[in-house]
Amino acid sequence: MSLRTDADSIIREAIEAVLPDRAVMKALGELKLPDRDGKVYVVAIGKAAWQMACTAQRLLQGKIEKGVVITKYGYAKGELPGFQIFEAGHPVPDENSFEATGYAVSMVKDLKAEDQVIMLISGGGSALFEIPLCDSGSLQDITKQMLACAADITEMNVIRKRISAVKGGRFAQIAAPAQIYAVVLSDIIGSPLDMIASGPVYPDASTNEMAWEIVRKYHLKLPEDVRKLLDMETPKQCGNVTTKITGSVDELCDAAADACRKLGYEPVILTSSLNCIAKEAGSFLAAVARKYQDSKKTVAFIAGGETVVRLTGNGLGGRNQELALAAAQGIGETRDTVIFSVGSDGTDGPTDVAGGIVDGHTAELLKEKGWDICEALRRNDSYHALEACGGLIKTGPTGTNVNDVACILIKR
Amino acid sequence: MSLRTDADSIIREAIEAVLPDRAVMKALGELKLPDRDGKVYVVAIGKAAWQMACTAQRLLQGKIEKGVVITKYGYAKGELPGFQIFEAGHPVPDENSFEATGYAVSMVKDLKAEDQVIMLISGGGSALFEIPLCDSGSLQDITKQMLACAADITEMNVIRKRISAVKGGRFAQIAAPAQIYAVVLSDIIGSPLDMIASGPVYPDASTNEMAWEIVRKYHLKLPEDVRKLLDMETPKQCGNVTTKITGSVDELCDAAADACRKLGYEPVILTSSLNCIAKEAGSFLAAVARKYQDSKKTVAFIAGGETVVRLTGNGLGGRNQELALAAAQGIGETRDTVIFSVGSDGTDGPTDVAGGIVDGHTAELLKEKGWDICEALRRNDSYHALEACGGLIKTGPTGTNVNDVACILIKR
Repeated sequence: MSLRTDADSIIREAIEAVLPDRAVMKALGELKLPDRDGKVYVVAIGKAAWQMACTAQRLLQGKIEKGVVITKYGYAKGELPGFQIFEAGHPVPDENSFEATGYAVSMVKDLKAEDQVIMLISGGGSALFEIPLCDSGSLQDITKQMLACAADITEMNVIRKRISAVKGGRFAQIAAPAQIYAVVLSDIIGSPLDMIASGPVYPDASTNEMAWEIVRKYHLKLPEDVRKLLDMETPKQCGNVTTKITGSVDELCDAAADACRKLGYEPVILTSSLNCIAKEAGSFLAAVARKYQDSKKTVAFIAGGETVVRLTGNGLGGRNQELALAAAQGIGETRDTVIFSVGSDGTDGPTDVAGGIVDGHTAELLKEKGWDICEALRRNDSYHALEACGGLIKTGPTGTNVNDVACILIKR
Repeated sequence: MSLRTDADSIIREAIEAVLPDRAVMKALGELKLPDRDGKVYVVAIGKAAWQMACTAQRLLQGKIEKGVVITKYGYAKGELPGFQIFEAGHPVPDENSFEATGYAVSMVKDLKAEDQVIMLISGGGSALFEIPLCDSGSLQDITKQMLACAADITEMNVIRKRISAVKGGRFAQIAAPAQIYAVVLSDIIGSPLDMIASGPVYPDASTNEMAWEIVRKYHLKLPEDVRKLLDMETPKQCGNVTTKITGSVDELCDAAADACRKLGYEPVILTSSLNCIAKEAGSFLAAVARKYQDSKKTVAFIAGGETVVRLTGNGLGGRNQELALAAAQGIGETRDTVIFSVGSDGTDGPTDVAGGIVDGHTAELLKEKGWDICEALRRNDSYHALEACGGLIKTGPTGTNVNDVACILIKR
């Protein structure tokens, strides 16, 4: 059972390292806010906005002139001294999004060069933080067209940024000449700063020309006001912004590696941007585990990212559970080896668990209980298979979301 | 171009290390044949039998009393002094297989304890080296039934060994009390010695009970003579056999690692038993490459094995080419990085190339030339896509076959 205990403590420590409060504390500590004459304002947006603001408020007690929290309905947990708290629509922006964003804009639009804005950005910010430059009918129309033609998220953002008053670096322009310190809790692999919350304080890498190319590609029919907006270029520089990414899947992997090291494992981070099919990733990791069976070292291999489930049945499960179950098939007969995979938000697919954990006995145990792993994977029923062999990992909702981490532990 | 040059030399050195002659030389060198009073006999079976025998004959000049080569039609390249050369049916055994095997049996059946038999075993031995214990009609009948019910190769071998006079360790029994030195050129991942050539000199791990379970599972209808054979147990020990596996995918990986080290790369062998879907393996390796982009070390990651192609189109390609093409998609924008994958036999799928090689510019180059990587993979047309970007690797037929090796090279 010692491997399972090790796994539990690695999972706990890795997730704790990327919780919003820890992440904000670490980032603000590293940012070393200069002691300036100006005033400090806080704008917190996204699903973790309230927790992030709460931590900032505690850390910078008395130094904050004014703050605003814009989060999803039900995600605010009470008042914060000096803060205006808004809840708004997600994933579809609503009037509250526009009102809240308007409040943030009015708060920062007349600042001086010695003032500072602390932006606390988390996933979900795209919908919550928005003021459209076109009328709301046009916005809905163009959104529907893009969804209908299956434009990808990158393409949608190229258009969206151009019809927004705050996205694509425009909020940074509004707050200038004040200095902005952005702390970003990343929920997108690779942490592309212009994608997270649509990059309100990050220079936009896309161009008007790219926007028009997308319009032509999908034969989008643009309302007249949107046509004009597509000719207005977004900021290509945000000289007044310093950004600190925190709580990313990279930190999740690093924290897992630290936890492994503390327990005597020699950790190797294989990747922090895994994006292949979940059960193939499980098969790959099992193949790695087999290679190190004869090694005399206590080792750990860590792979962070977000795999993909291909639906071929209507069972219950999630990408982390599929990865683990597929790995079980490949590590039958290995000894003193476990493979686990968990989502840092504590929720894997539409289930009440964070992921799955398997070892060299799992495949045999399942066979004894009448389970066929291939068939369970085909039915996407990893939850029930893992339930049958004690392979489910429950953490409860963690309050953060920075993708997943999978890990091979081999103890000698 | 230096990375491509590095890749070429790593591929060349890795394959050279697993060529039959090099492999036999190395294995016989390591076996340290004791200087004994007895006589030395050589039994070479499989697709590489002739080359292996040729090397043994050269190394042990004058010491070989008698030898036999049993290989596939067209695979013998001439006479060898002291050797009887047979060509026989593959993958279906024929009368020549039985005659040749009979010759080998008669050669070793009356040996003394001080005599030695050098067995040179390579892929294809199952069909080439065979004397059925039942009549040939029964053999064909049971083989057809097992093919019809889609029994897997392991299950087929459990039955096959019991109706063979030489498989499942029985040839070792015949040659006893002579000592047997077996040199196995492995073409199966993990080198399961009871599977390669159906393990003529390796104790059989399967049991009569397992054989009967398979009969019940598939409702096989057994001829009476076969029923009796299924009650005769195979050898569970072969005390007179020393086995040296050589030229396996493990050696292929080790040789690739050595070649990397010579060129200044710090090599990490991830696995030597990769068996997931080819393009997902490519995606996984690309994710590993991305992780090490910011590393300051010159590193190489090696993954050996044999991936699987899922057919979704009717283009031209092979598993190594699919792996490389899929990886190209994932390493766009990386610098000083290549990923390649090659089959050690020099033939990837039904093509004239050994595999594929890509770098951080491949995806862009293909886009410029009008190729959509996703679409090319969907059509299983990796050959033409790689051809368009100079990503094909040609080695010509190598004369060996020990699976594939894929490699990430990152130079700093």
